[in-house]
Amino acid sequence: MTGPVQHAGMRASNLALVLRAIADAGAITRSRLATSTGLTKSSVSGLVTDLVAGGLVEESEAPPSRDRGRPGTMLALDRQGAAGLGLELNVDYLAALVVDLGGTVRYRHVATLDNRHRPPAEVLAEVASLARAAVAAAREQGLELSGACLAVPGVVDGTTIVRAPNLDWADVPVELALPASAYGLSIENEANLAALGELWFGTPTPRDFVHVSGEIGIGAGIVVDGELFRGAHARAGELGHVVLDPDGPPCSCGGRGCLERLAGLDAILADAGAGSRAELEQRCATGEEKALAAVATAGRRVGAALASVTNLLDPDAVVLGGVFAALAAWLEPAVAAALADHAARPDLLVSRLGPDAAVRGAAGAVVRRVIDDPATFLGGR
Amino acid sequence: MTGPVQHAGMRASNLALVLRAIADAGAITRSRLATSTGLTKSSVSGLVTDLVAGGLVEESEAPPSRDRGRPGTMLALDRQGAAGLGLELNVDYLAALVVDLGGTVRYRHVATLDNRHRPPAEVLAEVASLARAAVAAAREQGLELSGACLAVPGVVDGTTIVRAPNLDWADVPVELALPASAYGLSIENEANLAALGELWFGTPTPRDFVHVSGEIGIGAGIVVDGELFRGAHARAGELGHVVLDPDGPPCSCGGRGCLERLAGLDAILADAGAGSRAELEQRCATGEEKALAAVATAGRRVGAALASVTNLLDPDAVVLGGVFAALAAWLEPAVAAALADHAARPDLLVSRLGPDAAVRGAAGAVVRRVIDDPATFLGGR
Repeated sequence: MTGPVQHAGMRASNLALVLRAIADAGAITRSRLATSTGLTKSSVSGLVTDLVAGGLVEESEAPPSRDRGRPGTMLALDRQGAAGLGLELNVDYLAALVVDLGGTVRYRHVATLDNRHRPPAEVLAEVASLARAAVAAAREQGLELSGACLAVPGVVDGTTIVRAPNLDWADVPVELALPASAYGLSIENEANLAALGELWFGTPTPRDFVHVSGEIGIGAGIVVDGELFRGAHARAGELGHVVLDPDGPPCSCGGRGCLERLAGLDAILADAGAGSRAELEQRCATGEEKALAAVATAGRRVGAALASVTNLLDPDAVVLGGVFAALAAWLEPAVAAALADHAARPDLLVSRLGPDAAVRGAAGAVVRRVIDDPATFLGGR
Repeated sequence: MTGPVQHAGMRASNLALVLRAIADAGAITRSRLATSTGLTKSSVSGLVTDLVAGGLVEESEAPPSRDRGRPGTMLALDRQGAAGLGLELNVDYLAALVVDLGGTVRYRHVATLDNRHRPPAEVLAEVASLARAAVAAAREQGLELSGACLAVPGVVDGTTIVRAPNLDWADVPVELALPASAYGLSIENEANLAALGELWFGTPTPRDFVHVSGEIGIGAGIVVDGELFRGAHARAGELGHVVLDPDGPPCSCGGRGCLERLAGLDAILADAGAGSRAELEQRCATGEEKALAAVATAGRRVGAALASVTNLLDPDAVVLGGVFAALAAWLEPAVAAALADHAARPDLLVSRLGPDAAVRGAAGAVVRRVIDDPATFLGGR
């Protein structure tokens, strides 16, 4: 933790210092807060007053104990105040999700539909509609949205979707008519947000892992020492375009033999002769051989690609996420066998969040911003 | 640059601060050194006196100029003082190389021989013999060896070679009877050192690149923002074990279909029906079709693997090194074609140092240590 800052941006920095200390502690007294931040008790009191008034911190009476005389007032993150809106625009679904400052999901809506043959403006209007419903639901619960983050299956620059091959979109600027909020709208690649969602809310992971988002496309979020690895142009983690068969079929990226062309959801559905992911899961659950064989084939291919990832990046663990988590009972043994066959032995984990990881990560990214920069939230009210 | 340090380790830190400033500037006066480090002129004078006496810095008269009155005394790294010894133990050669503080190569010896069927102790004795010859040659030139770094084709832990599949070595502790030196002996993976060698002494590279060491094995050094990316267990960069053909032939790593099994030097020689790399290069140079076809096949395979690397890591450039640099005239077009075929377009560069990159990087790592920590060098004299 950094110490108190002694210059012009002092109040903003100290608000963040105090709020981070409260978030880390869970519940803490003003007196301990002064000790842990190095600020004076009177500074802490002033800052806490602002944080409480702004709906970021709440006070409660601590239970009496034998060690202390009268009970002290405990401070904790206010779970009835600021909240973050996560949105996801994916190839075959849209999602909206609200989390409060404590990370609890307060609203969730997922709409299944195929976005591949629709104009971007139409799809974005639908995302905006989902977002407005989420905002209204949050307000009904007394929560105040501090900002929104949209997960998209492609490469992003600012608020433009530069390239989303599985949607066949290029250079689509994103504007959503949302209510004004402190941090506005940010956009990020869904595989990156899914890795962060897993790190913050999901399966306990080590500090170095690769999270695989299996959907129509296959992406990866690479976490190194607890932080996203983005590469030189923020395009790292394109696991779906690892070359599995140099002479394989053409891919939407312009290449050939890519993993996602051979083991993405469309490839599995075609191989299994299934019409939807629900049908596929149901047929796997009843032990239908063709469906199980299709999933196992995909698992071996994913495992071979993850052996390459392990040899290149040396993570502690790989996490199967997205639809791969939903199919894990049948997919994971094939992935493990292929990893062993290629002499790679990272820990193999299954996401707890599955297809929700990206939208959870998106909502969590907004909440994290409130905790990192409360002054902007308080100033924008 | 960090400022002067005001505590017990002050002298050591300030020696490093001053020496780094001299190295960065090339040549600088005491007065400018005080300005750039934030130290007082008298502190700078005392520190410089120690650095000059220790053979790390030399003084020279600056040429007179119209702007100034009398010429000032310029300070620069002493190219006749401390030096670094780089050693390399590879599958089919051994090497020793000495660089001075300015990075100039002062001694180089490469011995070609096949180390695969020899006991580790015998090979290490030969490395020690090469090292002693290098130390003697450095002394004859008035240089003082500050330490040694050994490049090995495998995974390292401390001074133990944990695993070197292409030598069929495992858990080999390394001790070389070398003259005492300030920093002693360190050991590092050769692909990592080759990337550093290229970064410090070779082809001008961007800050994010992947350097490919093509030898009997194929390794990669991953440089992210000018620093080595090592992974969670210091085993990142195993490009040779990227899976190119999931059903391919078994590899020494225990896996199958690995890139180095299909495109390493042994695979190219077998495919070309050549007995040595010299014969292969000579036959390529005369346009012999079988040799050219073997190199082109390897190039396409390396290109497909580098497309995967680019999609995962998003570097600015990939650099072909080792024997791939020597074969670049015939290999590089096939690598470029495969990258394009797989829709990956990093800058494709060829190493200037070729097979010397790792041993240059090893010697450079020692010299870098002198500049980062001159107090240990001065204290050990």
